[in-house]
Amino acid sequence: MSETSALTGPVEIVGTGLIGTSIALACRRSGLDVLLTDTTSDHVRTATGLGAGRPRTAQDTPQLVVVAVPPDALGAVIAQSLDAAGPGTVVTDVGSVKDAPLAAVARHPAVGRYVGGHPMAGTEHSGPLGASAELFEGRPWAVTPGPDATPAATRVVEALVRVCGAVAVHLSPAEHDRAVARTSHVPHLMASLVAGTLAGASPDHLALSGTGVRDVTRVAAGDPRLYSQIIGGNAAAVAALLAEVRDRLDLALAAVADGDRVGLESLLAYGQAGTRAIPGKHGAAPQPMEAVRVALPDQPGGLARLFADAGASGVNIEDVRIDHDPGRPVGQVELDVVAGRAEELRAALESRGWTTHP
Amino acid sequence: MSETSALTGPVEIVGTGLIGTSIALACRRSGLDVLLTDTTSDHVRTATGLGAGRPRTAQDTPQLVVVAVPPDALGAVIAQSLDAAGPGTVVTDVGSVKDAPLAAVARHPAVGRYVGGHPMAGTEHSGPLGASAELFEGRPWAVTPGPDATPAATRVVEALVRVCGAVAVHLSPAEHDRAVARTSHVPHLMASLVAGTLAGASPDHLALSGTGVRDVTRVAAGDPRLYSQIIGGNAAAVAALLAEVRDRLDLALAAVADGDRVGLESLLAYGQAGTRAIPGKHGAAPQPMEAVRVALPDQPGGLARLFADAGASGVNIEDVRIDHDPGRPVGQVELDVVAGRAEELRAALESRGWTTHP
Repeated sequence: MSETSALTGPVEIVGTGLIGTSIALACRRSGLDVLLTDTTSDHVRTATGLGAGRPRTAQDTPQLVVVAVPPDALGAVIAQSLDAAGPGTVVTDVGSVKDAPLAAVARHPAVGRYVGGHPMAGTEHSGPLGASAELFEGRPWAVTPGPDATPAATRVVEALVRVCGAVAVHLSPAEHDRAVARTSHVPHLMASLVAGTLAGASPDHLALSGTGVRDVTRVAAGDPRLYSQIIGGNAAAVAALLAEVRDRLDLALAAVADGDRVGLESLLAYGQAGTRAIPGKHGAAPQPMEAVRVALPDQPGGLARLFADAGASGVNIEDVRIDHDPGRPVGQVELDVVAGRAEELRAALESRGWTTHP
Repeated sequence: MSETSALTGPVEIVGTGLIGTSIALACRRSGLDVLLTDTTSDHVRTATGLGAGRPRTAQDTPQLVVVAVPPDALGAVIAQSLDAAGPGTVVTDVGSVKDAPLAAVARHPAVGRYVGGHPMAGTEHSGPLGASAELFEGRPWAVTPGPDATPAATRVVEALVRVCGAVAVHLSPAEHDRAVARTSHVPHLMASLVAGTLAGASPDHLALSGTGVRDVTRVAAGDPRLYSQIIGGNAAAVAALLAEVRDRLDLALAAVADGDRVGLESLLAYGQAGTRAIPGKHGAAPQPMEAVRVALPDQPGGLARLFADAGASGVNIEDVRIDHDPGRPVGQVELDVVAGRAEELRAALESRGWTTHP
């Protein structure tokens, strides 16, 4: 169809890690010629072996270069790619911050052919072996043209997003960076601060850990080196928002210390409102959910039986959480269903011998 | 057996909400006589109808009174229970803070017969209809005798914990409160502060929300009125720890603003270490896990088919997360398995037609 014809290839992938190789596989799936480049030649061999494309040669002239290298290397590699590119070659990247790489090439004569991008398919895992053509299916993919970007270059990058099955979200680089400071970087730092309070705590005290603290701290398990590059690369936006959070933390601290229950409740109510602002499944308004809790014997196949029985009920499971409280010989599974369907699911599960509670 | 004979009944439950009625059901399961009291007579009728016991009469003399009322009412109701109790009656409670209720009865002549407790079976749901005798099965249950508590009273409360199938964790009231400040109250406040940054944010920005921010903010959806009572009731311990967190937040803010990557990475590494301190399943040291990611069509029965196929592989699923990224027509499910078993599960799922990536 004509709207995807803006991308005709070849597509060069610079950096054949998880993200780069996944993009390469998606392009191959669409029949595009894909050229692979990496400072680690093992990675190129692996990606080639996976059918992600072929090593680039001096004779090749890519239509689109996709820079998929670690955050701190982005600016330099984007500049090199613009240097090396032919007059018709568009350059994009997949970095998780967008202002800094644009600033690195702002005075480059070919800056009009650079359009930043950021697929929301984050994972702490790396390396081409984990790659998949489906990694971006249905995911948001920020497309962030700078002020000098040409409409033609932007169309080529939008076509790449479609080839990968993702959904383009158009933002300016600065807006993008403020958005991810809010939805990713500040939450990560806060999770890390909470997790830091657990390091070295008494095991007797940690025995009281429930699902709440596990949820809050989960992302803090990510690689510190990678996240210091990501968060450090978005310093201005992160610092601005973090300063706001610090001011609200001071209010919370004062409310707690002064016994100001009204102030404390209003801070908690503001947070509760914030949880409702996160978009629901498929970008829709969040749907009210109800939870059904099921006691689960801790043995292989238990979840399989539970989900088979839940499936037979005809009620769709929207979310699932497994409770890992220490010392618990049976697990507890929470199944979220659309409000109004919980009783139906409970009855179906009880009739098949499961113990449930709301 | 002799170690459980310390609890012979009758057991009076004061407050027949979710927790109180669940304790009542567990006691009835063991054949104990259970007396029910609540300021809302509807709740007593409902709990009685569920088989949780019988309304208390003036002729009854409980051996153990379990106070299960909202946090702000605890001290007064414990004092009333000690006033009304016979000379052999023990009083406990299930409140989520333990220093404040003890302080409320510290000068009571019968304080030796009060032993605080806190079952770790939290839920935001309330009311007797959600009750279950299995609610506490295998869960930690803090038992927090004050300095004047008699050994005999403590044994009665320990026997209640066993009757409920829970695991007693012995802590002083002050230690308990410091522990839950760390494992529950400060994480809740921090989640609430992060969620607060989302309230009123642009939908374009929130479209970039992934699983990380959802995990971090999940607990902040809890009832602000209830949590302001819980957190406000533990003011000293929460304020002390929150002040430490504020100081570390200031360090994080300075590291980000000053471009101090080494400082930022070391803060993140400290948080990463903290995530490893949380005890694993059944109180064991956390086991290394690997994740297998599976693309899931968004239709009823999809999870059931996936878990049936995973069950057939013989690899036990330790944890599961469903990815709800907006705009995603297929979901992504992350299955955690013990390190070393991921390849086996991937191969089994791929052979049954699932698309996986690590």
